[in-house]
Amino acid sequence: MSVTEDVAVPEPFEAAPGLAGVSVARTEVSDVLGRKGFYHYRGYNAVDIARRGKVEDAWHLLLRGELPTAAQREEFARQTAALRQLPDGVAELLPAVARLSRPGSLESLRSAVSVTAQAIGCKPWTDQAAEETGEQAARFAAVMPTLAAQLFRLASGQPPVPPRADLSYSDNYLYMITGKEPDDRSRYAVERYLMLTIDHGFNNSTFTSRVIASSGADLGAVVTGALGALSGPFHGGAPARVFDMLDAIGSPDNAEAWLRRAINNGDKLMGFGHRIYKTVDPRSELLHEVARELHSERVEFAELVEKTAVELLAELKPGRELYANVEFYAGVVLEAAGLPREMFSATFACSRVIGWMANVLEQIQDNRIFRPLARYAGPDAPREFPGSWQPGAP
Amino acid sequence: MSVTEDVAVPEPFEAAPGLAGVSVARTEVSDVLGRKGFYHYRGYNAVDIARRGKVEDAWHLLLRGELPTAAQREEFARQTAALRQLPDGVAELLPAVARLSRPGSLESLRSAVSVTAQAIGCKPWTDQAAEETGEQAARFAAVMPTLAAQLFRLASGQPPVPPRADLSYSDNYLYMITGKEPDDRSRYAVERYLMLTIDHGFNNSTFTSRVIASSGADLGAVVTGALGALSGPFHGGAPARVFDMLDAIGSPDNAEAWLRRAINNGDKLMGFGHRIYKTVDPRSELLHEVARELHSERVEFAELVEKTAVELLAELKPGRELYANVEFYAGVVLEAAGLPREMFSATFACSRVIGWMANVLEQIQDNRIFRPLARYAGPDAPREFPGSWQPGAP
Repeated sequence: MSVTEDVAVPEPFEAAPGLAGVSVARTEVSDVLGRKGFYHYRGYNAVDIARRGKVEDAWHLLLRGELPTAAQREEFARQTAALRQLPDGVAELLPAVARLSRPGSLESLRSAVSVTAQAIGCKPWTDQAAEETGEQAARFAAVMPTLAAQLFRLASGQPPVPPRADLSYSDNYLYMITGKEPDDRSRYAVERYLMLTIDHGFNNSTFTSRVIASSGADLGAVVTGALGALSGPFHGGAPARVFDMLDAIGSPDNAEAWLRRAINNGDKLMGFGHRIYKTVDPRSELLHEVARELHSERVEFAELVEKTAVELLAELKPGRELYANVEFYAGVVLEAAGLPREMFSATFACSRVIGWMANVLEQIQDNRIFRPLARYAGPDAPREFPGSWQPGAP
Repeated sequence: MSVTEDVAVPEPFEAAPGLAGVSVARTEVSDVLGRKGFYHYRGYNAVDIARRGKVEDAWHLLLRGELPTAAQREEFARQTAALRQLPDGVAELLPAVARLSRPGSLESLRSAVSVTAQAIGCKPWTDQAAEETGEQAARFAAVMPTLAAQLFRLASGQPPVPPRADLSYSDNYLYMITGKEPDDRSRYAVERYLMLTIDHGFNNSTFTSRVIASSGADLGAVVTGALGALSGPFHGGAPARVFDMLDAIGSPDNAEAWLRRAINNGDKLMGFGHRIYKTVDPRSELLHEVARELHSERVEFAELVEKTAVELLAELKPGRELYANVEFYAGVVLEAAGLPREMFSATFACSRVIGWMANVLEQIQDNRIFRPLARYAGPDAPREFPGSWQPGAP
């Protein structure tokens, strides 16, 4: 660099790629203790809540700050059920949006959320009352299942099913997709999945939510951006890929050979390993339990693949501590509960949006815009203009 | 915390709020030297390029890595002009999208971009050839002015004007908004603005682009999220607000009293101060020059307000080093060039998208997903479940 800063400017801290190991904010929403295999929502063991509670419990805890009493749960469920309806102007647009992408795509969900935010009249949070922002935070989580389910039905040639206010969050979600009320097994399974995946520290989409919100943008901008982040294969785009792997393996007697070849080829095994967990992912453990209770044909096969993969990873990648992550049993559970494979990522969006909203409400209480630095590593500045460049303007 | 990590886990680095002073990546795209009042695109003084070049020059430099020769500029202009057309399925949706928000809103532009990405068939960059991702990066920048201009005309009750391939990027933009070819003054002014604002380090929307792209998401997810970030009042949402301030001051003899009162009230003056620049913003200097050349009535008034504000800020906020930033003269220039005030933010999006795309193409070459940590500061975990909580599930 021939142009340098004054000596007075402090040297920037150079973070590791991907901000690994860098704490970017204080939070009271959730935490993940990777080596303990433990995570919590506002201090409560998330797996315990997921095992015993309803989506409305975790949602109330994250959004309002405390677990609800039975009466509060009922009131909260009533309030949020009323927010499931699409605002005026959205239903007319959904068929054309659905037609542009495959069924279940997060891309059409992203467009639909953006349009819904317009229809709600979301303003920058700096320009509206805190109560209005809080109401919109509940509304985006309430309306996401409606958008996801209606887009899916439209894209697969079925008429949309309007939401019902008398069903719980997860029952209504299944109802809007399948057109019928879920049985007890499906209800139990999908609700466990949804509760387990609401929040999980500063994962990529949650971080995206905070970065966008920090500019003062409206909640529609936040949810649209976070959905985009979630659609990436390194983040929420993977659950269906675990399934593709199970399909590719095909049969139990092919598992070891297939997995050994994949690991030796340097392929990343779908559903194994996590940036933060260096032990068994606690979400995977409960999902495994749920999967067993569903007595799905696929469960035994998945168990064999998990066991074989963990053994082979320990043998071939010693010290890497690669275990099954949340995605490994997620697909098995969701499929056995009657959800089409194309809807796995959208189902994830229906739970994680609650976490995004809780994080954003926290972010804006003590906001500073995210505006990091980068280390310039290109040609020294200022460069001489090349003789070949003939300026185009006066 | 009663549950703690193993001692083996290294302590996370605790970044300042907003990641101030933290370098989050290496880049060869651009750099900003805040105390020098200097910024560059790949080493070339950005103000020099903006003064003497065309949008296509800076675009080629950022996307392809080098300033074009005259022949390369012509070829690049030809290629990108062909990408201005809306893909099939988008034009039909624009009227309904435009109707949901005010003219010029970034919210409708966000929805339109998301739908355009669906129509193009953008896939996660992990799932498509690098050439295809590169082509899409050019396409989003090429199509943004078309979307912005057509939405504006639809929302203000005028028929959309299709793009013309025989005009330059900035001439075509003005043509699609006003329906006529720009005169030399307007052409010169708008092109200077566009070139000055293409890229500027890891500002909030550019950082958003990289965070989203790092998940493997498609470029549509990136642009949609970045537009959301840009719509925040602390970022791209402010240029029109400078105008609102000039309107509120009203007349030269009111400037000192109005500004003194605002500063003493602790109000943030729109168009002054910058996280990185602690001297005059070089973008503001060229825009000031351009404004003078436009002989706009408003220029003299804006100059008086700038001079008064800088003096008062030095007097009342000593040591804070608050100077006019890029937004201060941006509105004056764009208005004098015939752009409606509602279109200031969308015009910013039409230049900054080029920077987003250059950054994303760099990010994905050596990608690691952004997945930072947070410091949990809530109640100690695990908390006892409250007696009032009656679990809702079996």
